[in-house]
Amino acid sequence: MTLPLNPAFALTEPPPVMEARRWLEGVTHPADRPLINVSQAAPVESPPLGLRQALADAALNDPAAHLYGPVLGLPALRDEIARQFSAAYGGAIDPAEVAITQGCNQAFCAVMATLAGAGDEVILPVPYYFNHRMWLDMTGVRAVPLETGPTLIPEAAAAEALVTPRTRAIVLVTPNNPGGVEYPAGTVAAFRDLARARGLALILDETYRDFDSRHSIELGGRPHDLFADPEWQDTVIQLYSFSKAYRLTGHRVGSIVAGAARLAEVEKFLDTVAICPGQLGQIGALWGMRNLGQWVAGERDEILARRRAMTGGFAALEGWTLLGCGAYFAYVEHPFDLPSDELCRRLVRDASLLMLPGTMFQPEGSAAGRRQIRIAFANVDAAGIAEMFRRLAAFRP
Amino acid sequence: MTLPLNPAFALTEPPPVMEARRWLEGVTHPADRPLINVSQAAPVESPPLGLRQALADAALNDPAAHLYGPVLGLPALRDEIARQFSAAYGGAIDPAEVAITQGCNQAFCAVMATLAGAGDEVILPVPYYFNHRMWLDMTGVRAVPLETGPTLIPEAAAAEALVTPRTRAIVLVTPNNPGGVEYPAGTVAAFRDLARARGLALILDETYRDFDSRHSIELGGRPHDLFADPEWQDTVIQLYSFSKAYRLTGHRVGSIVAGAARLAEVEKFLDTVAICPGQLGQIGALWGMRNLGQWVAGERDEILARRRAMTGGFAALEGWTLLGCGAYFAYVEHPFDLPSDELCRRLVRDASLLMLPGTMFQPEGSAAGRRQIRIAFANVDAAGIAEMFRRLAAFRP
Repeated sequence: MTLPLNPAFALTEPPPVMEARRWLEGVTHPADRPLINVSQAAPVESPPLGLRQALADAALNDPAAHLYGPVLGLPALRDEIARQFSAAYGGAIDPAEVAITQGCNQAFCAVMATLAGAGDEVILPVPYYFNHRMWLDMTGVRAVPLETGPTLIPEAAAAEALVTPRTRAIVLVTPNNPGGVEYPAGTVAAFRDLARARGLALILDETYRDFDSRHSIELGGRPHDLFADPEWQDTVIQLYSFSKAYRLTGHRVGSIVAGAARLAEVEKFLDTVAICPGQLGQIGALWGMRNLGQWVAGERDEILARRRAMTGGFAALEGWTLLGCGAYFAYVEHPFDLPSDELCRRLVRDASLLMLPGTMFQPEGSAAGRRQIRIAFANVDAAGIAEMFRRLAAFRP
Repeated sequence: MTLPLNPAFALTEPPPVMEARRWLEGVTHPADRPLINVSQAAPVESPPLGLRQALADAALNDPAAHLYGPVLGLPALRDEIARQFSAAYGGAIDPAEVAITQGCNQAFCAVMATLAGAGDEVILPVPYYFNHRMWLDMTGVRAVPLETGPTLIPEAAAAEALVTPRTRAIVLVTPNNPGGVEYPAGTVAAFRDLARARGLALILDETYRDFDSRHSIELGGRPHDLFADPEWQDTVIQLYSFSKAYRLTGHRVGSIVAGAARLAEVEKFLDTVAICPGQLGQIGALWGMRNLGQWVAGERDEILARRRAMTGGFAALEGWTLLGCGAYFAYVEHPFDLPSDELCRRLVRDASLLMLPGTMFQPEGSAAGRRQIRIAFANVDAAGIAEMFRRLAAFRP
C-alpha cells in the first residue's frame, strides 16, 4: 500500500532549479568551453572578509549565537531594518513592524499562509517567480495569472477585472524576477490603490531592491512611495532578502515589513515552521547592514555595468528580443522553432550554457513561455557575458 | 478596511513559548531567588569548542558555506545520518532516504504538508507537542486527540477506533514531548502495524532519541526495531533534531528519514519554504556526528542523573504526582485548586519558576490539562533541581 499523498502536491511541479541541475548530469563540457551557469540568482563569491570574520567571531565567542532567539528575529536586526528602510523609503516603519525569516521564500510563505487558504485566489503577474506559484499550488490556493504583455509591466486596471470575492492578495516582485523590469512608482501606487479599495493585501517582494537602477534618481532615490503613506499597514506587506546584496544565500535570512497585527499571525507560522531564524545568518545580516553600505553601492554599479553589457549584447544578437533586463535577470525571446525547455537542454549540451526556460515561469501550456528564457546574468563578469554572447551567436539548434 | 485573514489562523493559538516569555515581563526576581527557566527544551551552554571552531573555520575559509546547497541538504550529512542510523537501528537507510531541514519543526511541517490538506485528519496522542497541533490547525487539518490516560502511553487499539476515511497519519513522539515517557518498542511496532494495515503514515518524532535511557539495553541499544523491517518505507517517516544533542538550537538543523518517493514531494515544500538548510548549521551537525559520539554519551549520562533527581524530588514532594519523566521533560500533576495556566503565572511571580501549563499541550477545555505542568528539567543542574524542589515545597498559591 502506498502512503497518502495530499492531492495538492500531486498537482505541484517539482522545483525548477533542481530540475535544471539534473540537465547537467552526464554532460561533459569541453576544456575550452566551461559551463556558464546563469540559472539561479545566487552570488558565487564569498561575502567580504569583515562579514566572514564577524560570523567566525560569533561562532567562537557569542553564546547567544547557538541558542534559540525570538520567533520574529533578533531585535537589533529588526531595529536596523526599521531605521534604514524608514530612511530609504521616506516613511515610518517601526521595529515591531519588521520580522526576520529563514530567507525571503519563507517570508512569502508565512505571509501568504496568513492571508489565503484552500479555495482562495491570489493574483500573480505572469511571468511569475515559480516558488510563489508552488506555494499557492501546495496550499490549494488558486494562482490567477495577470498577463503583462511585451512590456512585462502589469496594469492595475487589468488586475481589477480579475478580482473576485475569493481574491485575497496581489503579488508584485520589483525589480522583477524573472522579468528583470523595474516597476514604475506609478504602477506600484496604482496596485496599492486597487488593493486598498478592494480590501486585498499588496505583497511587494523587493528581493532585488539593492540593484535597482533608480537607486539615486526617481523619488529621491526610492523606487516607490508606499511607505510614505502613514496608513501603509492597512494594505502593504513588503518582503526582502539578505541573500543577494550581502552574499548570504547559504545562511537563509529574509525579512517581512507589515503591520504588527499581521506579524502576530505570521508569528504563529514562523514559530511552527522555523522556531526562529538561524542566529549566525542574522548576525551576518546585521553586520552587513551596519558596515557594507558603500560596498553594496559598488556591487550595484558593477551589476548595472553588466546589465549594460546584456542590453548591448542582445541588441547585436540577431533574432533574439530582450523583453526585460535589470536586477539579476535578462528575460528574452529566442528565435528558434523549439519550445524553450527543449532549447535550454540543448544549450547545456551544445553550448555549455545553463539558463531557465520561460515555461518554468508561466502557467502550463502558455505559448509565450515556450518562446522565453530567463538569464541570471548578475553573477557573470564582463568576460563571461562576452563569451556567452559568442556562444549564443554561434548556436544553431 | 482590514486585510484578509485566513480563518484557520484565527482558530490557531499564539505560540505558547512566546506567551510564557511574556509572563516574565515586569516581574523582578529577588537577588537570592533568580529565575529558574524550565519552559523550553533548549540547551543553555554553547556547543563544545571543537564544533565552534569548525563553524568559525567554515565561515572564514569555506566558500560553499555561503552558497545555496541542494534543497534536501548536504550530501555528506545525508550520508552520515544514513550510516549512523542504519547501524543504530539495525536497518538499511539509504542516503537518498534522508533529507535535512531547517530544524525538526520544519521537518514535521514538510512531511505533514505532503500527507494531509484541509479537511483531512491526523491522530495525535494527548498531551501533544503544541507546534504539531498548530501546523494542523493552520492548514485546516483536524487534529484527532488520542487519550493516553495516566501512563501517557498511547494504545494502538484505541487509535484504531479513531481512524476514518479522512485519516492520513498518526504522530508519535518518543521519548515524548511533553510527557517525558519512552514508548515501549512493542507500542511503536503496534502503531506501525495499524498504520500499515490502514494505509496511513506513521510519523515518529525522535528529537530526544539521544537521551533515551534504554540506549544500551533494549533491542541491543535501540528503542524500536522499525528500521529492521526491510519495507519500512511503506509506512514509517522518522524526524530528528540536531538541536539538543549537539546544542545547535540557534542553527536550526533537523532531518527526515523517509522513502525516496516521499522525499521528492517533501522537496517541493522545502524548495519553496527554505530553498536549502543553512550551510553552517549543517557543517556543525556533520562535525558533531563525526566527532562528538563520546561526548553525547556523557551528556546522556548527565541528563539521566538529573532525571533521577527529578524522580526522587517528586517522590518526596507532597501532593504532586509525576506522570512521566525522561528525555528533557517531567510531566506532573499539581495538587492545587487552580488551573495550571494561572498556577504557572503565580509560580513565576511568587517562586521565580517558569514552567509550561498542561493546557498548552491539550485540546481547549481539557480537564486534565488544567491539572498538569511540563518541566523541561534537562538544562538545570543538580543544584538547580534541588533549589526548584525547595521552592515548590514552600509554594502556596
